[in-house]
Amino acid sequence: MSSRSMTGAECLARTLVAAGVRVCFANPGTSEMHFVAALDTVEGLRPVLCLFEGVATGMADGFARMSGVPAATLLHLGTGLANGLANLHNARRAASPLLNLVGEHARAHLNSSSPFIADIAGIARPLSDFVHTAESALTLAADGARAVAAARTPPGAIATLIVPADVAWGGAEGPAEPLEPSRSATVPQERLDEVARALESGRRSALLLRGAALCEPALTSAGRIAARVGARLLCETLTPRMQRGAGRVPIERIPYTAEEGRAFFTRIEQVVLVGAEPPAAAFAYPDKPSALLPPGSPVVYLAHPHEDAARALAALAELLRAPRAAAPRTALALPEAPRGALDALAIGRIVARHLPEGAILCDESATGSTATVSATASAAPHDYLGNTGGSLGMGLPLAGGAALGAPERKVVCVQADGAACYTPQALWTQARERLDVTTVIYANRSYAILKWERARLEPTAGPGSDALMSLVSPPLDWCRLAQGMGVEASRAHNAEELEAQFGDAMRRRGPRLIEALL
Amino acid sequence: MSSRSMTGAECLARTLVAAGVRVCFANPGTSEMHFVAALDTVEGLRPVLCLFEGVATGMADGFARMSGVPAATLLHLGTGLANGLANLHNARRAASPLLNLVGEHARAHLNSSSPFIADIAGIARPLSDFVHTAESALTLAADGARAVAAARTPPGAIATLIVPADVAWGGAEGPAEPLEPSRSATVPQERLDEVARALESGRRSALLLRGAALCEPALTSAGRIAARVGARLLCETLTPRMQRGAGRVPIERIPYTAEEGRAFFTRIEQVVLVGAEPPAAAFAYPDKPSALLPPGSPVVYLAHPHEDAARALAALAELLRAPRAAAPRTALALPEAPRGALDALAIGRIVARHLPEGAILCDESATGSTATVSATASAAPHDYLGNTGGSLGMGLPLAGGAALGAPERKVVCVQADGAACYTPQALWTQARERLDVTTVIYANRSYAILKWERARLEPTAGPGSDALMSLVSPPLDWCRLAQGMGVEASRAHNAEELEAQFGDAMRRRGPRLIEALL
Repeated sequence: MSSRSMTGAECLARTLVAAGVRVCFANPGTSEMHFVAALDTVEGLRPVLCLFEGVATGMADGFARMSGVPAATLLHLGTGLANGLANLHNARRAASPLLNLVGEHARAHLNSSSPFIADIAGIARPLSDFVHTAESALTLAADGARAVAAARTPPGAIATLIVPADVAWGGAEGPAEPLEPSRSATVPQERLDEVARALESGRRSALLLRGAALCEPALTSAGRIAARVGARLLCETLTPRMQRGAGRVPIERIPYTAEEGRAFFTRIEQVVLVGAEPPAAAFAYPDKPSALLPPGSPVVYLAHPHEDAARALAALAELLRAPRAAAPRTALALPEAPRGALDALAIGRIVARHLPEGAILCDESATGSTATVSATASAAPHDYLGNTGGSLGMGLPLAGGAALGAPERKVVCVQADGAACYTPQALWTQARERLDVTTVIYANRSYAILKWERARLEPTAGPGSDALMSLVSPPLDWCRLAQGMGVEASRAHNAEELEAQFGDAMRRRGPRLIEALL
Repeated sequence: MSSRSMTGAECLARTLVAAGVRVCFANPGTSEMHFVAALDTVEGLRPVLCLFEGVATGMADGFARMSGVPAATLLHLGTGLANGLANLHNARRAASPLLNLVGEHARAHLNSSSPFIADIAGIARPLSDFVHTAESALTLAADGARAVAAARTPPGAIATLIVPADVAWGGAEGPAEPLEPSRSATVPQERLDEVARALESGRRSALLLRGAALCEPALTSAGRIAARVGARLLCETLTPRMQRGAGRVPIERIPYTAEEGRAFFTRIEQVVLVGAEPPAAAFAYPDKPSALLPPGSPVVYLAHPHEDAARALAALAELLRAPRAAAPRTALALPEAPRGALDALAIGRIVARHLPEGAILCDESATGSTATVSATASAAPHDYLGNTGGSLGMGLPLAGGAALGAPERKVVCVQADGAACYTPQALWTQARERLDVTTVIYANRSYAILKWERARLEPTAGPGSDALMSLVSPPLDWCRLAQGMGVEASRAHNAEELEAQFGDAMRRRGPRLIEALL
């Protein structure tokens, strides 16, 4: 037996590094102090301070989407975890691997009347795939190894490890060996044969892609298949990551609303799901459908989310003898510079004109999203990251995490003003870590998406509910808010100003915010 | 049977008004649109828009602490509720009555693959005393009546009513009759007799007061008892509400740390609990106690939290034949104007010098609290509201809610900068509603409380963990942040500047922020 000269926390930190965890998005408190101290002595686990826990979980999501490996978060007690839940929901819907370390009181203290006690496991469960409360300093490292493996369960999962303070500070024997993460399952040959037959049936077909299927090399395989059998290639509105732009295989986006989605699918006779589930509307409305596919629509699964969609698409392309050069490619086509008043389309065009090759486009532009996505379709090749779970406040953190996950690439965050108000503290971490993120705030000074939703639901509402969707009084001044958190900021009143300011931001590095007045 | 011309949401809103709910702190989404529409047609339920759900729950807490009646929150789906949990924890530890209305998808939609679905009841349970998911538009109003009654269960509780969209939009028959809220239980005579005997035993005694026992008329009764039997009067560091200052019965505050608390109680032979529980340290530390009372200390319950402490104290004072004029009173004693560099004591003195009679002092000054509380002890009579559950980000919302709960009174929020970063959006609602709140930011640009906690836990930590407690790089500019949200702001570099700025703020009305550089 060793001398137990390391704390449990230090053994845990070393285990995480060995298991491939490189970054820890932290908002620690008293019960996490021994893990914080371990961050000082353990090489390879970069701490990134966040002023709010929803920033930590959102950044971990962005980091995972770009790097493919889980980041850790370090959160304080049940309420710290609670503040992180909304972006955990988005991360979970993105299938991002993510490990939450949540400090708990020393176990003896849980019998006291301390007002800081809450049911952490109960708070964790609804949005975690794996929850474990560590029981001993001697087994904490092993718990960490298991938790990382749980997070890496294909396609990616939320693991929450609760660490009582006495477990963190207790003496332990050393780090644990990391577990070999499980790999995506292989799609069986019979399913490939079945899908090939379905695609050659002559039915008007579409492949709905998600996850790895929307990135190279899977995209090219999908393009070959589509060209070979005359199928359409689709993605959902809310998609975790997609590679697009010039030189990439073009993908159609399913309309957002139930009725438009349903109409869209009436022209399609069978849908092949590749890492996706049967598409559903975000919300239900009186007398409108929930499922976008008409009842009885033939649905064929090529790959479930936990299966290796890239390999399945490559094999299917070969099976169908799809020519290698057949995949369609988007031609670079930059829009003319718009003039005058700004709207989402004009912003999208300006973004498209200046977006550098290899940029990452984070989209929480809400009502602006359709126009922005459309305007950037033929821009330089880039990665698109979307809101996946509908919980607002994802954009600013996601962009920061993406910048850390892919540090050589420019990140552009197209961000609705109302949604930005949930996690504005992300700007501070962008400044502190000098992240290469340019944020464009769509300042329509309203919850425009709610006005739109209300119109669908309740056309007779009056002035009181109008006021509940207005952010005019007082107007939010995003330049001051960004500057107050150390981010350089400017305001664009029209297209000409945005063209100049955004172009300048693309030529330089570091955090920047432009408030685009709509 | 009636025509069912009202929606379930409208019947719910009318029921809440009849049950005494006057304010709804709202951050609605699509699934809450019918309740939003109902707010337009139903008189007496004031909607207050919040940009973040933790602001809504924190404001509801402040409203309840000052008004004694529950406010409603209106939150969007499971993640909206999740964002509100941290301040629900504080509200629950304050025993504030509070009703959360959480919109859910239409029930048929829950079978779809909508990525917006989460387990709302699961998210609600760990921090709610009552959770119910409404099942029919016809019974929604009755559910609302029950939920308000649950929130008003003495001493106050968190009730969460989950409202599926189809239940809200369905036709209903009318509002429900409110339930008579249950009253605090009466302390039985035998217990009064027992406590009287204990206090006359000659043991060195202290009464630990909480809740209604720290407000008039209970305070005067407690003062009479203390004077009659030579007992000390105590409160906890984390106390929901206390009336103090000139003319009020002085109360000693138990030291915060376990070792100081333990030392404090060694000089006391028995503790009488009046609406309080046996005091515990907030956190555990290696080889330090959790309970502040030495093992085996005699503890006597006069009133449990759900019992009528005011009536019990009045009866006990009579039983002990305590003279009516015997209660000690704090004499008004305003400090001299401090000079030069600012620290928490200097801020406290300046606050004390200018605090108007009847002001409300909201305290989330963290490491500054002990000095601030001490410096304001002999100021004009005021109400003190503290952080009760240790979850940061309570101050700014609590202050806004208190201003709405007691609209004629000036609110002063003494606020640590690190803690303010969790819910800065509260400033926007303060501006929008023109609330009479002056915030003083204690800008030490660090998580000073963590440095202090770390020193108690891990004296050997190095520069990496220092960086995790520093908010210097970049510095937060609270003037710009406040102005960005529509709140007038200024910066005080020294005591002279704070004296001038704070004095000015006390003479005017409306929201104001002063960043006090420490």
